[in-house]
Amino acid sequence: MGRRPGAGVTIRAIADEAGVSIATVSRVINGRAPVAPATREMVRQAAERLGGAPGGIGPTAAHPVLVYCPYVLTDYFGTIVTSVVETLALHGRRAVVQAGETAQGQTSTLLDLPGQPGIAGAVLVLPPSSTEDLQALHARRYPLVVIDPRVELPEDVASVSAAHAAGARRITGHLLSLGHRRIGFVGGPVDWQASRSRFVGHASALAEIGLLTEPDLVRHVEEPTAELGYRAALSLLEQAEPPTAVVAFNDKTAAGALRAARHRGLRVPEDLSVTGFDDSELSESTTPMLTTARQPLEEMGRMAVSLLMRLVAGHAVDTLHVELATPLVVRESTARVGRAPRTG
Amino acid sequence: MGRRPGAGVTIRAIADEAGVSIATVSRVINGRAPVAPATREMVRQAAERLGGAPGGIGPTAAHPVLVYCPYVLTDYFGTIVTSVVETLALHGRRAVVQAGETAQGQTSTLLDLPGQPGIAGAVLVLPPSSTEDLQALHARRYPLVVIDPRVELPEDVASVSAAHAAGARRITGHLLSLGHRRIGFVGGPVDWQASRSRFVGHASALAEIGLLTEPDLVRHVEEPTAELGYRAALSLLEQAEPPTAVVAFNDKTAAGALRAARHRGLRVPEDLSVTGFDDSELSESTTPMLTTARQPLEEMGRMAVSLLMRLVAGHAVDTLHVELATPLVVRESTARVGRAPRTG
Repeated sequence: MGRRPGAGVTIRAIADEAGVSIATVSRVINGRAPVAPATREMVRQAAERLGGAPGGIGPTAAHPVLVYCPYVLTDYFGTIVTSVVETLALHGRRAVVQAGETAQGQTSTLLDLPGQPGIAGAVLVLPPSSTEDLQALHARRYPLVVIDPRVELPEDVASVSAAHAAGARRITGHLLSLGHRRIGFVGGPVDWQASRSRFVGHASALAEIGLLTEPDLVRHVEEPTAELGYRAALSLLEQAEPPTAVVAFNDKTAAGALRAARHRGLRVPEDLSVTGFDDSELSESTTPMLTTARQPLEEMGRMAVSLLMRLVAGHAVDTLHVELATPLVVRESTARVGRAPRTG
Repeated sequence: MGRRPGAGVTIRAIADEAGVSIATVSRVINGRAPVAPATREMVRQAAERLGGAPGGIGPTAAHPVLVYCPYVLTDYFGTIVTSVVETLALHGRRAVVQAGETAQGQTSTLLDLPGQPGIAGAVLVLPPSSTEDLQALHARRYPLVVIDPRVELPEDVASVSAAHAAGARRITGHLLSLGHRRIGFVGGPVDWQASRSRFVGHASALAEIGLLTEPDLVRHVEEPTAELGYRAALSLLEQAEPPTAVVAFNDKTAAGALRAARHRGLRVPEDLSVTGFDDSELSESTTPMLTTARQPLEEMGRMAVSLLMRLVAGHAVDTLHVELATPLVVRESTARVGRAPRTG
């Protein structure tokens, strides 16, 4: 019970202590690949000896971290929060989670955080707070990392996000390489940084081959849901000269676009190509499976905790804005324009 | 900062304090239906005056509650955990969340909980722990509620689950009423209580009209994923006398069954009916949208917290096993056997 928690315990230190590879410790942490129970236990015990206490419910004197994610924890948000919570556990930190849409009205109370005993710092996921609030919190030297900031943040507020523009550029580039020229774009909420950046990526891919974005090929959804994606895609497809491909804001809106295609009697990908964004579980659950851009959600969570732990420990952090790559994942929902599908 | 938290604050008390209806407070809590920002703020302030501090990051001396859900917080798990966290916040309790598959190896440390300072009780979601562990924890009078127990629990361990058997019976009854007689069944992991109960419901619906379950129409997946659902459904459909309908364990495995149908050149619902279970977001994202049984995930979370708060306060709780109804939700993936679809 008197163990000292080691907030700065690293994966490398645990690997050394357990006598296993760094990759093995990672597998135990991310829980994806199979690890023999005995090995898992060895890693757990090593982490515990070092005070890392993966699992996070071991006795610990280290203050917990607030994880603020004011949305229902499904696909995108749930995967990020799970990764944050798991990584905090490895650092011997409990995660106090505030989630759900009811938490959205509570952003002002974030400003009270520095006055609260017992919370070491905070990871905020897509917080609806204004830049001013975050800046004020940061000005009080409160350890803080923002994942997927909704608005552009000041230089000195730490953040982790996906490379939205580059990912969108890859998606549209992929469609252009398949011969598509009339490409519909279903954007996300207009005031989201992610939404604006992805539009920039889309437009720059078009510009590269001398095309301009046409206003009648662009829609925006107020919320990225399947239902709103369906309606936006339908309004694109009902035009006199409909697009041959639809770039959707994320996998959910893309799922809606698949339904819009079916509604119009269009086969995907034979008659219409559709792309998503996220590479969430949903992208492999639709028929056809979605071509999408991968957001490294788990790595975003791990990176955020790593930055936060350095801030909490008072270490210098040079790279405060971390952007993680968004590779293209080609599945079944895209094909050469006006041709049979590439795969059966 | 010196406010006293009121762990026992009720929705009714908040409604009285704010001068609004109980329904309005509920809407603010569950965040689903629209509430005017001013009303929302009024409720928030009322709750805060009573010490309920929705949002849960207000200063509080009440001990937090452990929410243990050793899975990635997507659809099913994410929705339950979000509801638990939101409801705890309304009670002025912080939620210490332990989630992710790495938490699965840590069940033995649950037994250490009673010795841990600063945790008032625990909500365990589908814990992989053995009955003995849970019983031991309970024997130490530790406040504990299990959501969706994996195994049957002793009488005196509080639990909240969905009516699995009744839901499955409704699903199969729906297919029988559409004339289906050869109904394939893709069950979940054989050692899950939910899986066994749903099979019982399925079999009893068949028995009601004098049919027996045929072994060649039953498959089980080791994990309820779209990929394994696809394979299981495919193996059912590749038989000499394939089923005309497939009952899948949940919405994800049903999404896999939709893909299997497409792979076999079968139209859903014209040539094959497919059903899910959960009524998760996914069930409205597939094409066609899934006929399914609704699991009241949010209410399960609210009910679990309500039971736990009574246990923490030392109140008598008579109904320790709560089972919530699972209504049938008919969408587009089911139709009369061998006929055109009922809807366009």
